[in-house]
Amino acid sequence: MIAPNMATMLAFVTTDAAVQPRLLQDVTCRVTERTFNRVTVDGDTSTNDSLFVLAGGASRVEITGEDAPGFQDALEAVLGRLCRMIARDGEGASRLVEVRVEGADSEQDAVRAARAVGESVLFKCAVAGGDPNWGRIVCALGYSGAAVVPETTTVHIGEVCVVQGGTPTDKDAHEPMQAEEVIVDIDLGQGQASARVLTCDLTKDYVTINAEYHT
Amino acid sequence: MIAPNMATMLAFVTTDAAVQPRLLQDVTCRVTERTFNRVTVDGDTSTNDSLFVLAGGASRVEITGEDAPGFQDALEAVLGRLCRMIARDGEGASRLVEVRVEGADSEQDAVRAARAVGESVLFKCAVAGGDPNWGRIVCALGYSGAAVVPETTTVHIGEVCVVQGGTPTDKDAHEPMQAEEVIVDIDLGQGQASARVLTCDLTKDYVTINAEYHT
Repeated sequence: MIAPNMATMLAFVTTDAAVQPRLLQDVTCRVTERTFNRVTVDGDTSTNDSLFVLAGGASRVEITGEDAPGFQDALEAVLGRLCRMIARDGEGASRLVEVRVEGADSEQDAVRAARAVGESVLFKCAVAGGDPNWGRIVCALGYSGAAVVPETTTVHIGEVCVVQGGTPTDKDAHEPMQAEEVIVDIDLGQGQASARVLTCDLTKDYVTINAEYHT
Repeated sequence: MIAPNMATMLAFVTTDAAVQPRLLQDVTCRVTERTFNRVTVDGDTSTNDSLFVLAGGASRVEITGEDAPGFQDALEAVLGRLCRMIARDGEGASRLVEVRVEGADSEQDAVRAARAVGESVLFKCAVAGGDPNWGRIVCALGYSGAAVVPETTTVHIGEVCVVQGGTPTDKDAHEPMQAEEVIVDIDLGQGQASARVLTCDLTKDYVTINAEYHT
């Protein structure tokens, strides 16, 4: 969880724009699906996580249906930055990890695949150790439930291609795996859908924080 | 994974009984669903995990459809014991954890609920710390996808009832939580289905083993 000993995650975003409640709710839900709902520190959903978006209207600039796409983009930029901060600040985290999946058969498949990798305890331990363990990435894709065909699967860690058509390239990806922000790009080669998930590594400090909080 | 640096999990079970391949396959699949497929050390399915059941027929005792239930019970007892050994031997594990769910609406729901608790990284850290953190159990039930109603949910750790009708009892469950084998009994109060999952705690040694295996 984000901060189990203090409070749950409560996010407040305010804007001076004047936005009708229904439009604001619609836009917030859409954007949350792609931002807050794609952050996972440990896969443990806190039942109290909340995001409040408040539009006070002080600017007297009214957001109508026409302006909605622009407003949505701006909100997504703000929420996206908050999400990076949350993942980077995960309990015991030493590295931010961004798992980006493209070429999926559907958005649901893209999310499944990205989430399986981002929540793989084994993969997150490999990130903690700075080891570009492509096997753990491919393994998580395999059990994700998404349509995955080894022969069409390509995996990059940073700029380094580690798996091409399901086969390891033997290229050295230690440097991007030991960066402050580890980016894993996965192309499933199955379709046009994409998704990304933000997470962090799993370190001994995570276990200490979540096992020894009473001592 | 069970032993990622040596091999994947390969289980071999032999019997001198004479069993026709089709019956043996049927019984093995049914029993595996309730034994090996309900063990989870970290949720990371190894793509190579295999169980082989070989019937040599040396005893000349033929197992027919009539004997199948007895044969199935015997096989389940053997596989069940192997599974406890596997979970107890999980990487870095200090405790075996058995999550038993009853009163579920369907077997699928029972498995979902048991698996969510058994794979909750937060709960497994609490087990490592020996803390009877009922909140992490209830939280995992909540996001499991199973039909869960707080008011009908009861949770025991060992013999100690920690949650009754969704409300904490404030009874001290430190002793059963610090036992060698931690048993969590969950009654969802929704139906008749049950399931159990075997797992272990998540310790700093798990992270060391899976992060620093190259050093």
